[in-house]
Amino acid sequence: MTLPRPGRVPIWNPRRCGEFEESTFRHEPKQGRFSVTATIDFQGDSESVLPLARRLAETRRLSLALAEPLSAEDQVVQPMEDASPTKWHLAHTTWFFETFVLKPHLAGFRTLDERFAYCFNSYYEAAGPRQPRPKRGLLTRPSLEDVLRYRRHIDTAIDAIFKTGVVERNRAGAELIALGINDEQQHQELILTDILALFAAQPLRPAYRPSRPSPGTSRGEGTGPARWLDFPGGIHRVGHAGESFFYDNERPRHEVLLQDHRLADRLVTNREWLEFMADGGYTTSAHWLSDGWAAVNTKGWTAPGYWEGEQGGWRRMTLQGLVPVDLDAPVCHVSYFEADAFARWAGKRLPTEFEWEVAAAALPVRGNMLGSGALRPLPPPASGAHDKPAQMFGDVWEWTQSAYAAYPGYRAGPGALGEYNGKFMCGQYVLRGASCVTPEGHSRATYRNFFYPHQRWQFTGVRLADDA
Amino acid sequence: MTLPRPGRVPIWNPRRCGEFEESTFRHEPKQGRFSVTATIDFQGDSESVLPLARRLAETRRLSLALAEPLSAEDQVVQPMEDASPTKWHLAHTTWFFETFVLKPHLAGFRTLDERFAYCFNSYYEAAGPRQPRPKRGLLTRPSLEDVLRYRRHIDTAIDAIFKTGVVERNRAGAELIALGINDEQQHQELILTDILALFAAQPLRPAYRPSRPSPGTSRGEGTGPARWLDFPGGIHRVGHAGESFFYDNERPRHEVLLQDHRLADRLVTNREWLEFMADGGYTTSAHWLSDGWAAVNTKGWTAPGYWEGEQGGWRRMTLQGLVPVDLDAPVCHVSYFEADAFARWAGKRLPTEFEWEVAAAALPVRGNMLGSGALRPLPPPASGAHDKPAQMFGDVWEWTQSAYAAYPGYRAGPGALGEYNGKFMCGQYVLRGASCVTPEGHSRATYRNFFYPHQRWQFTGVRLADDA
Amino acid sequence: MTLPRPGRVPIWNPRRCGEFEESTFRHEPKQGRFSVTATIDFQGDSESVLPLARRLAETRRLSLALAEPLSAEDQVVQPMEDASPTKWHLAHTTWFFETFVLKPHLAGFRTLDERFAYCFNSYYEAAGPRQPRPKRGLLTRPSLEDVLRYRRHIDTAIDAIFKTGVVERNRAGAELIALGINDEQQHQELILTDILALFAAQPLRPAYRPSRPSPGTSRGEGTGPARWLDFPGGIHRVGHAGESFFYDNERPRHEVLLQDHRLADRLVTNREWLEFMADGGYTTSAHWLSDGWAAVNTKGWTAPGYWEGEQGGWRRMTLQGLVPVDLDAPVCHVSYFEADAFARWAGKRLPTEFEWEVAAAALPVRGNMLGSGALRPLPPPASGAHDKPAQMFGDVWEWTQSAYAAYPGYRAGPGALGEYNGKFMCGQYVLRGASCVTPEGHSRATYRNFFYPHQRWQFTGVRLADDA
Amino acid sequence: MTLPRPGRVPIWNPRRCGEFEESTFRHEPKQGRFSVTATIDFQGDSESVLPLARRLAETRRLSLALAEPLSAEDQVVQPMEDASPTKWHLAHTTWFFETFVLKPHLAGFRTLDERFAYCFNSYYEAAGPRQPRPKRGLLTRPSLEDVLRYRRHIDTAIDAIFKTGVVERNRAGAELIALGINDEQQHQELILTDILALFAAQPLRPAYRPSRPSPGTSRGEGTGPARWLDFPGGIHRVGHAGESFFYDNERPRHEVLLQDHRLADRLVTNREWLEFMADGGYTTSAHWLSDGWAAVNTKGWTAPGYWEGEQGGWRRMTLQGLVPVDLDAPVCHVSYFEADAFARWAGKRLPTEFEWEVAAAALPVRGNMLGSGALRPLPPPASGAHDKPAQMFGDVWEWTQSAYAAYPGYRAGPGALGEYNGKFMCGQYVLRGASCVTPEGHSRATYRNFFYPHQRWQFTGVRLADDA
Repeated sequence: MTLPRPGRVPIWNPRRCGEFEESTFRHEPKQGRFSVTATIDFQGDSESVLPLARRLAETRRLSLALAEPLSAEDQVVQPMEDASPTKWHLAHTTWFFETFVLKPHLAGFRTLDERFAYCFNSYYEAAGPRQPRPKRGLLTRPSLEDVLRYRRHIDTAIDAIFKTGVVERNRAGAELIALGINDEQQHQELILTDILALFAAQPLRPAYRPSRPSPGTSRGEGTGPARWLDFPGGIHRVGHAGESFFYDNERPRHEVLLQDHRLADRLVTNREWLEFMADGGYTTSAHWLSDGWAAVNTKGWTAPGYWEGEQGGWRRMTLQGLVPVDLDAPVCHVSYFEADAFARWAGKRLPTEFEWEVAAAALPVRGNMLGSGALRPLPPPASGAHDKPAQMFGDVWEWTQSAYAAYPGYRAGPGALGEYNGKFMCGQYVLRGASCVTPEGHSRATYRNFFYPHQRWQFTGVRLADDA
Repeated sequence: MTLPRPGRVPIWNPRRCGEFEESTFRHEPKQGRFSVTATIDFQGDSESVLPLARRLAETRRLSLALAEPLSAEDQVVQPMEDASPTKWHLAHTTWFFETFVLKPHLAGFRTLDERFAYCFNSYYEAAGPRQPRPKRGLLTRPSLEDVLRYRRHIDTAIDAIFKTGVVERNRAGAELIALGINDEQQHQELILTDILALFAAQPLRPAYRPSRPSPGTSRGEGTGPARWLDFPGGIHRVGHAGESFFYDNERPRHEVLLQDHRLADRLVTNREWLEFMADGGYTTSAHWLSDGWAAVNTKGWTAPGYWEGEQGGWRRMTLQGLVPVDLDAPVCHVSYFEADAFARWAGKRLPTEFEWEVAAAALPVRGNMLGSGALRPLPPPASGAHDKPAQMFGDVWEWTQSAYAAYPGYRAGPGALGEYNGKFMCGQYVLRGASCVTPEGHSRATYRNFFYPHQRWQFTGVRLADDA
Repeated sequence: MTLPRPGRVPIWNPRRCGEFEESTFRHEPKQGRFSVTATIDFQGDSESVLPLARRLAETRRLSLALAEPLSAEDQVVQPMEDASPTKWHLAHTTWFFETFVLKPHLAGFRTLDERFAYCFNSYYEAAGPRQPRPKRGLLTRPSLEDVLRYRRHIDTAIDAIFKTGVVERNRAGAELIALGINDEQQHQELILTDILALFAAQPLRPAYRPSRPSPGTSRGEGTGPARWLDFPGGIHRVGHAGESFFYDNERPRHEVLLQDHRLADRLVTNREWLEFMADGGYTTSAHWLSDGWAAVNTKGWTAPGYWEGEQGGWRRMTLQGLVPVDLDAPVCHVSYFEADAFARWAGKRLPTEFEWEVAAAALPVRGNMLGSGALRPLPPPASGAHDKPAQMFGDVWEWTQSAYAAYPGYRAGPGALGEYNGKFMCGQYVLRGASCVTPEGHSRATYRNFFYPHQRWQFTGVRLADDA
Repeated sequence: MTLPRPGRVPIWNPRRCGEFEESTFRHEPKQGRFSVTATIDFQGDSESVLPLARRLAETRRLSLALAEPLSAEDQVVQPMEDASPTKWHLAHTTWFFETFVLKPHLAGFRTLDERFAYCFNSYYEAAGPRQPRPKRGLLTRPSLEDVLRYRRHIDTAIDAIFKTGVVERNRAGAELIALGINDEQQHQELILTDILALFAAQPLRPAYRPSRPSPGTSRGEGTGPARWLDFPGGIHRVGHAGESFFYDNERPRHEVLLQDHRLADRLVTNREWLEFMADGGYTTSAHWLSDGWAAVNTKGWTAPGYWEGEQGGWRRMTLQGLVPVDLDAPVCHVSYFEADAFARWAGKRLPTEFEWEVAAAALPVRGNMLGSGALRPLPPPASGAHDKPAQMFGDVWEWTQSAYAAYPGYRAGPGALGEYNGKFMCGQYVLRGASCVTPEGHSRATYRNFFYPHQRWQFTGVRLADDA
């Protein structure tokens, strides 16, 4: 969230328009590729409104492209309380622009249907009552067609707002558009995450998209043991700096004190996870946190999420359907409890979020993200730079041992948008990096994702750390 | 269920073909009318297979006609555990013919997809594992289109079986077809009942079909107080007799001993129910069964199901959307608990199922059923025969005080079809008559419907009885 | 409940004092025997108040005797929602006399503590708010000592009321005392039933009383196959007649029409139940009602209640602790669902409550009840009269197939006491007879006990019936 | 836990016997005072075993003294899942010594009853199966008398172990005894916390002990506004150092980086809390974390735990029974969610655990703890040192904003005792200080207490912090 306290954080700098990177959206349905190459840095002067408008248009189009392989039926059903229907995501992101950009900033704006606010407000108490989260899947009306009409209605109004010059004159409006773009990107990841949850719950185990390249084929040629990279302790600066886009939970930038430590140069693989399982990982209480052990027993976990079958013949449900487990690929769909237990079994630990951030700070934000079209985590490249951790962005979000909490001096902003991040700072753990379904340009080294320790429907995995 | 014990019940009499009544199906979408004029008596000799085939075709077509106003989205979602998606009903009734008619009786029959059996078996333990009932709404696949293809596949195979002459030669097969027709009719009622539950749960309160005639317009011109009709006690014969179609729970026909008693000549109206409410009906424990009082408090009941608003301004959600409460129309969507409490408040009681049956035995099975196109209960005719109870068939199913139980000598048949009725004989109450969404030809005086005492999503209402 | 409609039912006839039987209470702690030989017929004229007073005193003393083997700790804890602590039973039965006899009838009566009414009202809505049933076990205060003081306070006041002559002059008062005696007897059975539930839930499996005679020793010498006794159908009169005590649910006496039928001459034994188990009784869905099959799977039933161990080595938890299963003794602690499934497996059925009553009408109310001191069901006598069913009273309550419902013409009385029986007429099944923990004098041929079909903590068993 | 890694932490130093402080136990039942003046520093050489033995004996006696005002009934009942019965606490602490000291270290030790291990193991997976936590209240057997016998049996054996010289020769044994003493102290606090939960759940609202001094009488004479004390940021050392007793979660001592900050010089008072309530504190979502807001609505919170009545007339349930709210006393029985919401409403924040620890490091561990006999939080002293925070130890545990997590380098020890603290490091928040029911000598500046954010049956309160 960009604007908790107007005037404090100059993320939109009129003088730096030229540095705004061109973004390009390519959707090649036959190849199943969604390509967005630009980062979402948001900078520019009054002439730079066009890039923002283009960026917005591309983001809006990507959402529709993601929904393309899905029928109206697929888009309306909610598989569980945590997940939402695709149609709801398409509508909510539209409501976001309507509520936070158009209603306050576009004179004469008319809503299409006042009742949609009730239907598509997610969790903003200050924005009024809403459809209860567990019942988002009841909304067969408005229909998908109505929602697409709603999207066009709002897109047209946003076009209009750009033409008014309001965005150029009003930094707050521009920043809200950038926030809306980022919100929609988060929901793009959720569309895929949630549709996998839905398809995995169906007896027919359908594929979101036939696999290409065929799963089971590793990018590399066998993954050797992880190497350990040393990082010195001491005082480091963490949190977001500069003028590009950020969420309010990445600020204030501040100093932290780290111990000397080590990080694995790659993610934990399925092969390693099978060793954990073979060694009684899921049946040995000593590896587990107390709440984790309760979760194992209550939920009957014996393997990562979406795994089916038996030792020796495990398959996993993916966006390409049910496929054999790729031994060299990173383990995915594990909860914090499992990540923590695995690390204890391995005699290691999870990194802190700041250990991760310091290691990532100088790395390019590149990797197996949504644009690759793989839609699943892939084995690490066969040969990488030996002095840098691989797979830091893309493949899977990486659980850290850090409870999600406010940075020193953080205060949530006023109003509904102040609810974006701050009110969730309890009971959740920070994940860093990005996943194979994160849109390009959405993440960065300071980005803080967060989930509850029992949740595993997200594309989440593990990188080990150790004391020096 | 016709054939629990092959050879015991001669419902298919080759010598009485000529008596098989012609049935006719008319679907007038613009008028919103589904018209099926024939009763479903199932009698005929080898030449009479055609009427059965025609009847079947009409039934199958009616299901599709009922789904016509619904989008694919509307047809896939499940609003609560008790209700099922329209698509599931369309597929289950198809699976029924496949499983019980085609697989055992049509040589060379090939299933379209073996996995559909898991998806669409309802509750037949003997027919194998199945999608859990609360998760029928997850089945976005097979798609509605696939399900329609499945229907065509099975319809074609049934055509084929008629051509083989197997039905003519094999009474059991013919009886199973009749059972399948009746099963599909039950699901036709459920399609409408369940879609109302879904639409009532949506913020937009959509209408299944715009009202025609407009709701609130009474058929009659004001309903006076109910009159009491006297019925003598003594030994009466109840249960199904003769060779027309019946379910196994209507047999054996047997004698019962009744007390002298009285029945109201019409159903309880919304006007009367509002008096009950105004008199503290929902807040006075003395009227209620202990379990009923618990339900009132747990579920927060203050009015019949689907009522919204406040005293003086109540509206009710119907298949025509949210409409004002029609004071002269029968109260609908009340549970057994409410029906029983109302009767106690009124100083009366509910009828027993046999009091009802004896009173209905000589009446024609006519009334405001599905074919009328009203899709809601209507006020009684202004002037009726004063010596006969009105509204016995149609408008609403009538709660009786009889717990659903086996008739003396009843034994459920072997195999999966033996599960059709018998295994539910516990904890439920019998309802008699028919409702405004019951297909013509489905009910009769001996018909026993049954639901749990807390359920009220069905079209259920009340007729009062009293001791002589 | 004796007085639903004052003046209608002359149960207390001043002219028949001489027929009032003497009752005698003997408590021999060392032999573990509670002996109450009289039936509780309640008849007498103004001189007959003494027998009523004596009967009352004996009943009150028996409750204390039953609590004698229990510590204060044992008496305060509630093992599950259905069961209540002993102390609560001791206090509730005292509150009953206070509320319904003393407050309305004894001038100048002073309560010991007004707050006890909240603590010890069971379910009488008309008597005010009360401690929620699942939280009766929280009441460490008032202490057991306080409750015993409360009992003495009320006993003294009842003595006083007898001395005032009010009971002699006021039939209603006398009838209320008789009702109170019967209420306390019901709670005497519950004290033992509920303490077994508590002890069975404890790791140490304590015995309420060391066994005497030692369990496993059959009274008879091996039980042969059950014999079938024929009963003719036709019109029979059922329900309570005459002037002795009865509950309102036993009235009105009325005619019922029975089919010709047969009853087993004894109860189903543990040996027979083991055959059912060995034949897959608990794993074959075809034997079970739908709700019963759900209960089997939800609750994990594989044997009767309180059975532990494995096939070949089953033991059962009893009031004598954990003992081997006595093969010839009646099966006990089975639910309606199990009783019904067993009967279906055996190719028989459960009796109706009226078949049972007609068979019992001429039999003496004698058997293995509380007074025998056995505290567990015993094998049938080796040789009985071959023309009469054995074990009709005592050993176990017998499930019937009759849903608990009102007799024709029944109306619950006004006020709190009208709640005694009537408001429970939903969802439960009638049991007939008496159990090994029913106080002598409490039951009779017309007595209707009732429980939900899933409940099995009571001493409940099975007698088979069949069509003629 | 003292000994995760044998040999690493020399807490028992034979050369420093002389420094071991004398501890003295005084129990004055009439004054309701439990006095334990010594800190529990555990140091000494082979001659210093006697002080350890004396300390142990005093601790064991204190537990009994705390149970003295309670009946056997009071001691057996469990009011809710979080709380345990007094008897269970008395037995569990005994099992602790038996399992971890006597069985491994006392040759020839014989257990009293092998089954007690199942009954009284709390949560140690490595120590075998156990009575499920929510069912600890079912254990009427072993009786209280049996548990007291069990205590004597174990006390005698511990006497014996001291006489063997094993403790002198075996540092591990001595350390385990110190751990057992601390475990028993924790359960002493729980005895009082849990008995309050039980008494508050009872309609009679009994007092654990009549109040002395009478509640409502403030120690001071009105509490002015809190003053703010400034603390400089920078690198600080936190965690336990030295050789006195500590739990493993207080180690390793390590450096942390703090920001400049301020702490209130006293706890938040009931008066301030009432302002929060009057200002809509419990009905304004903007103050609350998302999970906190859900808790408010699900649990119906409108005031701190144990408050009853209405604005203007609030009373609170205490160990002295139901008493008026003392306006100047610290608010108590608030959850983390409430503490956090209050701080946000006040425009402040909660301290981090390290800000608290640094401020407490130089303070004496003195305050209103168990020994004062007050058994409730008291207003701050009228005049304190203006440069030091008051009420840091005693009155209430203080919620911090720090999620309970491992210190850098922490690894839980092997075996059952490794489960003491480490496996709970998830989802809980750290509290610092001590409460009015914490035994003297149990806490210290580095002590980390922890509870879930929704829990409020503990004596928990709030101290505000702010950025500099």
